[in-house]
Amino acid sequence: MDKLKGNAIVGQSGGPTAAINATLAGVIRGAFESDHIGTVYGAIHGVAGLLEDRYCVLNDIVKSEEDLKLLENTPAAALGSCRAKLPDPAKDTAAYEKLFALFEKLDIKYFFYIGGNDSMDTVDKLSKYASIIGSDIRVMGVPKTIDNDLCGTDHTPGFGSAAKFIATVMQEMIRDTAVYFVKAVTIVEIMGRDAGWLTAASALTRKHCGVAPDLVYLPEAVFDYDKFYEDIEEAFKKKPNIVVAVSEGVKTADGRYVGEGTQSGATDVFGHKYLAGTGKMLENAVKEKFGCKVRSVELNLPQRCASHAASLVDLTESVMVGRAAVKCAESGESGKMMCFERIGDGDNYAIRCVSRDIASIANKIRYVPREFINERGNNITDECVDYLLPLISGEVMPAYKNGLPVHFVING
Amino acid sequence: MDKLKGNAIVGQSGGPTAAINATLAGVIRGAFESDHIGTVYGAIHGVAGLLEDRYCVLNDIVKSEEDLKLLENTPAAALGSCRAKLPDPAKDTAAYEKLFALFEKLDIKYFFYIGGNDSMDTVDKLSKYASIIGSDIRVMGVPKTIDNDLCGTDHTPGFGSAAKFIATVMQEMIRDTAVYFVKAVTIVEIMGRDAGWLTAASALTRKHCGVAPDLVYLPEAVFDYDKFYEDIEEAFKKKPNIVVAVSEGVKTADGRYVGEGTQSGATDVFGHKYLAGTGKMLENAVKEKFGCKVRSVELNLPQRCASHAASLVDLTESVMVGRAAVKCAESGESGKMMCFERIGDGDNYAIRCVSRDIASIANKIRYVPREFINERGNNITDECVDYLLPLISGEVMPAYKNGLPVHFVING
Repeated sequence: MDKLKGNAIVGQSGGPTAAINATLAGVIRGAFESDHIGTVYGAIHGVAGLLEDRYCVLNDIVKSEEDLKLLENTPAAALGSCRAKLPDPAKDTAAYEKLFALFEKLDIKYFFYIGGNDSMDTVDKLSKYASIIGSDIRVMGVPKTIDNDLCGTDHTPGFGSAAKFIATVMQEMIRDTAVYFVKAVTIVEIMGRDAGWLTAASALTRKHCGVAPDLVYLPEAVFDYDKFYEDIEEAFKKKPNIVVAVSEGVKTADGRYVGEGTQSGATDVFGHKYLAGTGKMLENAVKEKFGCKVRSVELNLPQRCASHAASLVDLTESVMVGRAAVKCAESGESGKMMCFERIGDGDNYAIRCVSRDIASIANKIRYVPREFINERGNNITDECVDYLLPLISGEVMPAYKNGLPVHFVING
Repeated sequence: MDKLKGNAIVGQSGGPTAAINATLAGVIRGAFESDHIGTVYGAIHGVAGLLEDRYCVLNDIVKSEEDLKLLENTPAAALGSCRAKLPDPAKDTAAYEKLFALFEKLDIKYFFYIGGNDSMDTVDKLSKYASIIGSDIRVMGVPKTIDNDLCGTDHTPGFGSAAKFIATVMQEMIRDTAVYFVKAVTIVEIMGRDAGWLTAASALTRKHCGVAPDLVYLPEAVFDYDKFYEDIEEAFKKKPNIVVAVSEGVKTADGRYVGEGTQSGATDVFGHKYLAGTGKMLENAVKEKFGCKVRSVELNLPQRCASHAASLVDLTESVMVGRAAVKCAESGESGKMMCFERIGDGDNYAIRCVSRDIASIANKIRYVPREFINERGNNITDECVDYLLPLISGEVMPAYKNGLPVHFVING
């Protein structure tokens, strides 16, 4: 083992999740345990904050096992986040020079970056720049995204908790919409611009609620209004209350987002064009076609930050992968992203953490495969359920005070 | 005590909540314990279902303590619900004759109806009709509504759980929106057409998050766009991320709902007029005025059915009030609604169940009092926090299977 001694810095980037702080806690745990790493710095607002010299000393902030436990169950990014895209290091080095000067000043030898696709691009570029200038800094990416659309990994940290919240409220809404005996359609719009993983997860209720949600539309299958109306007509033959789950990113055959439909001319009192969203669009369409009661629900922000309903498997794995990133960096790896490899299924579900070359992963999207979607394109298959189910397994009871979960606040 | 022996029937009516089944379980517990009551029937879809002879025998369905426990933590109305309004019994007796013939046939002596304002109107009318025809049937109303707007009671069963879910996700969204350092406004639209109780509850996060949500607008205070812009400008002086909680029912000085604003001319591709809602309306207004990032979130259905995050105080009291209704009916009362009387505050919070004459309660609305809202009309007072806090107290861990809460299904 290459005994590179020095300090470490960890940053968070991209959209928040319920598990990105669990991974932060995992990196902190790994770094505190390491005899190679001295001080553990936190980048405030990711690389964007680092470029403005904003960072903190985590050894002074996270002081106990209790702090780590609270941090693991705190939603969003405790260090703050950014959506910065670094320039090509072969063309424009100003930002890199600034960052590496800071690393030099703080004696940073280990850089950990927790984020989604864009953040892995940052990891890729930083490690390339390190090679160019012959720096020995080890740069490791740790994935997170509720979207589950990163390549190279069985699934992404953060997805399981979002999926569990979505399936939980979906089941509750199925109960709610079933109380009346009038014809009604409830349309639930779920996050996922490119990949339909989260919408697929809403169908995990079928182990409890029979077929409901009755219809499930992912961006991976072309959305067709006529087929959609036929699907609803068919569903009405069986029961009066139909629940539809739909990805925000479903598109018609011409490649247009369904949610774009309302942009065509309509404006509000301020003269703004409407972009009502996929759920609202379909609500209007079904009202027009069937004249029945229709409601659309956009699950919105709570999907990505509902730590109060987190998946125990997700949080446990998120800590594990942060810690594993430290081990890999200690053993000399750089320019890698940590990944999950599934080594057991069903009741024997198990994963192990592996590292993969980041250049083969960054800037690609992992879609829901065709065999996870039924032939008609209006629901998921049992194979998909089997893949998803272990990821929402287990419950976490957060610490509560004054009736609300207790969060660990670093920057806020 | 008047020993009236016979059977009982219980029904649910109005919008679902996370606690209406806890009250059903309370009535069932009370009836099973009673030595006056024989069979316990359940009305399927409330009085509307009864008018079509739809009912079930609960003794055959709810068979164990485990069943009762599951029922207590199942959202929505397990018996189904309706939104029926009975005619004036002095003018049109057809529906009453049909109902009382069924009661006669089933030897019903006790009628329990769990519901909100409209349902208490049904209880009032049924008990009046019973008096008119000299029936000895005892008719009791048990309140439920997430809106907390029934008169005669300190608060309503179901409110505490909705309030707890709203405050929980509000706190999570406050963390989520705080991760970036760009100017941004997040507007959260909360249920409450007439009364702002639920929106007020979103501010319970202030015990954890300082002042956030930064601004809180209830229907009880007139909404003024210019003051609203000033409020946001003021809030931006302190921090870049502003979170606004707003009741769906806020109105401008001319008495118009803010959410109506977008009806003025704009139509979608189907020619429908828009009613974008209060949050969407304010999102557009703030975008126009400040040109910053703005997002609106409508919490929608999960507010009223999120049993996975129920308040222990709420569920416990909801069971208690159902049981108390049986006791009151056994002791000869009729035409009453069960109410909560607060007999201790703060750490000594306690309530007792009392019955009140239904005629004095039905068809009235209990608003958030002026002293619970600050002078500027853009937040709640500490007095309001003190009133609300005990109601979201305590957590319930539902039974889970396959990663999701287990519900008890009667009709569905």
